Amino acid sequence: MKIVALAGGVGGAKLADGLSRALPPEDLTIIVNTGDDLEHWGLKICPDLDTVCYTLAGLANPETGWGLRDETWNALGAVSELGGADWFRIGDRDLGTHLERTRRLRAGQSLSQVTADLCRAWGIRCTILPMSDDPVATIVETDEGELAFQEYFVHRRCEPRVEGFHLAGIESAKPAPGVLDAISRADATVICPSNPWVSIDPIFAVLASALPLPVGVSPLIGGRAVKGPAAKMFTELGLEPNPLSVAEHYAGAGLIGMMLDSVDAVWSGPIRELGVQPYVTDTLMVTPADRLRLAKAVLDFVHRLSKS
Amino acid sequence: MKIVALAGGVGGAKLADGLSRALPPEDLTIIVNTGDDLEHWGLKICPDLDTVCYTLAGLANPETGWGLRDETWNALGAVSELGGADWFRIGDRDLGTHLERTRRLRAGQSLSQVTADLCRAWGIRCTILPMSDDPVATIVETDEGELAFQEYFVHRRCEPRVEGFHLAGIESAKPAPGVLDAISRADATVICPSNPWVSIDPIFAVLASALPLPVGVSPLIGGRAVKGPAAKMFTELGLEPNPLSVAEHYAGAGLIGMMLDSVDAVWSGPIRELGVQPYVTDTLMVTPADRLRLAKAVLDFVHRLSKS
Repeated sequence: MKIVALAGGVGGAKLADGLSRALPPEDLTIIVNTGDDLEHWGLKICPDLDTVCYTLAGLANPETGWGLRDETWNALGAVSELGGADWFRIGDRDLGTHLERTRRLRAGQSLSQVTADLCRAWGIRCTILPMSDDPVATIVETDEGELAFQEYFVHRRCEPRVEGFHLAGIESAKPAPGVLDAISRADATVICPSNPWVSIDPIFAVLASALPLPVGVSPLIGGRAVKGPAAKMFTELGLEPNPLSVAEHYAGAGLIGMMLDSVDAVWSGPIRELGVQPYVTDTLMVTPADRLRLAKAVLDFVHRLSKS
Repeated sequence: MKIVALAGGVGGAKLADGLSRALPPEDLTIIVNTGDDLEHWGLKICPDLDTVCYTLAGLANPETGWGLRDETWNALGAVSELGGADWFRIGDRDLGTHLERTRRLRAGQSLSQVTADLCRAWGIRCTILPMSDDPVATIVETDEGELAFQEYFVHRRCEPRVEGFHLAGIESAKPAPGVLDAISRADATVICPSNPWVSIDPIFAVLASALPLPVGVSPLIGGRAVKGPAAKMFTELGLEPNPLSVAEHYAGAGLIGMMLDSVDAVWSGPIRELGVQPYVTDTLMVTPADRLRLAKAVLDFVHRLSKS
C-alpha cells in the first residue's frame, strides 16, 4: 500500500517516523510544509523539513523534538555577544545543515534536489519532499498586525491573538517535482497530527488537487495540542479545540477518516455524522514504540477504509 | 608617542597585543591586511582581522594562534558529513563572528564600521582598522597557476612553488576611513613580524603613501618563519630567508630601523650598510610576557630613532 503523508514539524515528524518503520521505503512519500521557512543570519532555514529529516535519521533531539541531539550552541552565543539576533535558536550542528543547504541553493540547486541529497547523506531511505521549491510564506494575521510565521511562533511566542492566515507567494508556487506523481500513485493520504492552519493548510493550498483517501490524525488531544499553538488558534478563531473541529477543517479536502485519541472518544459520533469515519486509539506519541504503534493503527484504518 | 602598526596574522597579532599593553589605547592604531579575506560558506571571512581582534581581546586559541579558545567544531563536522567544503576550518564560536559580520555587511555597513562595532563588543580599546573597505585579493602566482591566497595557504598547504604575487582589485581600493588620518598623526610605523609578501605588501599597496618612521621586526628567525610560508617564499623567489632580505624588501617603504633576533646578529652589519639601523634582541614571542617585552623594545628603538 503506497502512502503519502503530509507533515509539519514535531508531531508530523513522529508519525512520519512511525510510518517509515512500518512501510517499505519505496511505499512512503512524506510531503513537508515549507510555509514556515525563513531567511535568518543570511541562511535558508526550513524548520519543518529539518525536523522531519532529523527525526527520520534518528538525529533529532529527544527532549525538544526539534534540532539535533548532542547539540552545542556556541555560534549562537557568539552572535548574541556581538549584538546579533538570537531569538531564533540555531545549534552548531544544525547550523551546518543550514550553511550547506544555503550554499547548494545559491549554486542553483532546487530545494527538493538539496533535500534529496541531504536525506541520502543522512541515510533516510523513504522519500521526503518539500511541498514546493517555490517560496511560500505563512503570514499570521493577528491583533497586532501581520507576522511572518517564525516571528509569531518563536519571536513572539504565539502571544498575539490570531485573526486569520494567508500564504504569500501561493499564486505562483508549484508543487515540487515528484509531489503530484507520488499523490497519483498513492493509495491513501495520511494527514499527520500537525497544525491544521499553519502546517497542513499550506500543503493543501500548494497541491490544489484531489488527494487519494485522506485520513487525518487529530493533533488535538483532550482540548490541547501536544505541542504548538493549534488549540490556541482554534479557540481564537471561535472554534472549539477538538477532533470534530479538525475533521470539519479537513472536510474540504474530502476527509474519509479521522483518528482521535481515546480521551476524545465522545467526538466519534459527531464526526461520523459529518460523514467521516472515526477511529479511536491512543494517539499520544511519547516513545519511539508509540510512533510505530500509531503508524500501524493508521495503516490498519486506511486498509479498512480502502475496502469499504 | 603615537604608533601605527601594520599587521597580518599570528605574528603580527602577538606584537600588536604587546603594543596594546605598552601604550595608551588612544596612541595605537593597528592597520590589518585584508588581502587574504575570503568568501566561504557564503560568509565573509577576514582571517587576519579576526586573529588580531581575538588576540587583543584575549580570546585567541593559545595553541594555534588563530581561532578562538575553548572552540568546538560541530558546524564544520555537520557540513563535512553532508559533503560540503571542510578544508577551511571554521570553529563554532568563530562562525558566530563570520555570521554577524556578514549580516552587517549585507545590511550596508562597511568592513571598518563592522570591525569597530565588533571590537567594542570584545572590549578592545585601541583602534583596529582593516587596510581597506574595498575588496583586495592577494593572488599567489605558482608553478601550478594562480591561486587565491587561502587556496594556496590552507587548501594546498603552501605546497605549490611561488613565482610571484599580485593584488586583484588594488587599482580601485582606497584606504579604509581613519587609516590615512592615523598615519598622518603617527610618530612611527611598526611593521609587525608578519609575512612581507602577503601580509605587509598588500597594506603598503593600499596605503600608497609615505609612512612616518617605519621600523620593521623581522618575521624570520634563524632562516625560518615562526609560522607560515615566509621563509619558503623568500627561497622560492631566489632570496635568502634572513633579516637582510626582509630589510631590503622594505627599503622601498623608506625603512629606518630593523629589529632582528639575537640568533641573526650576524646580519646587523649588512643591514647597517643598507642605511637601515639594526636592533638585536630576542624577538621570538612564546608567552604573553614576551609580547610585552618585544613591544617595549620596539618602542625603545623607535624612541631612539626618532631622536637621531
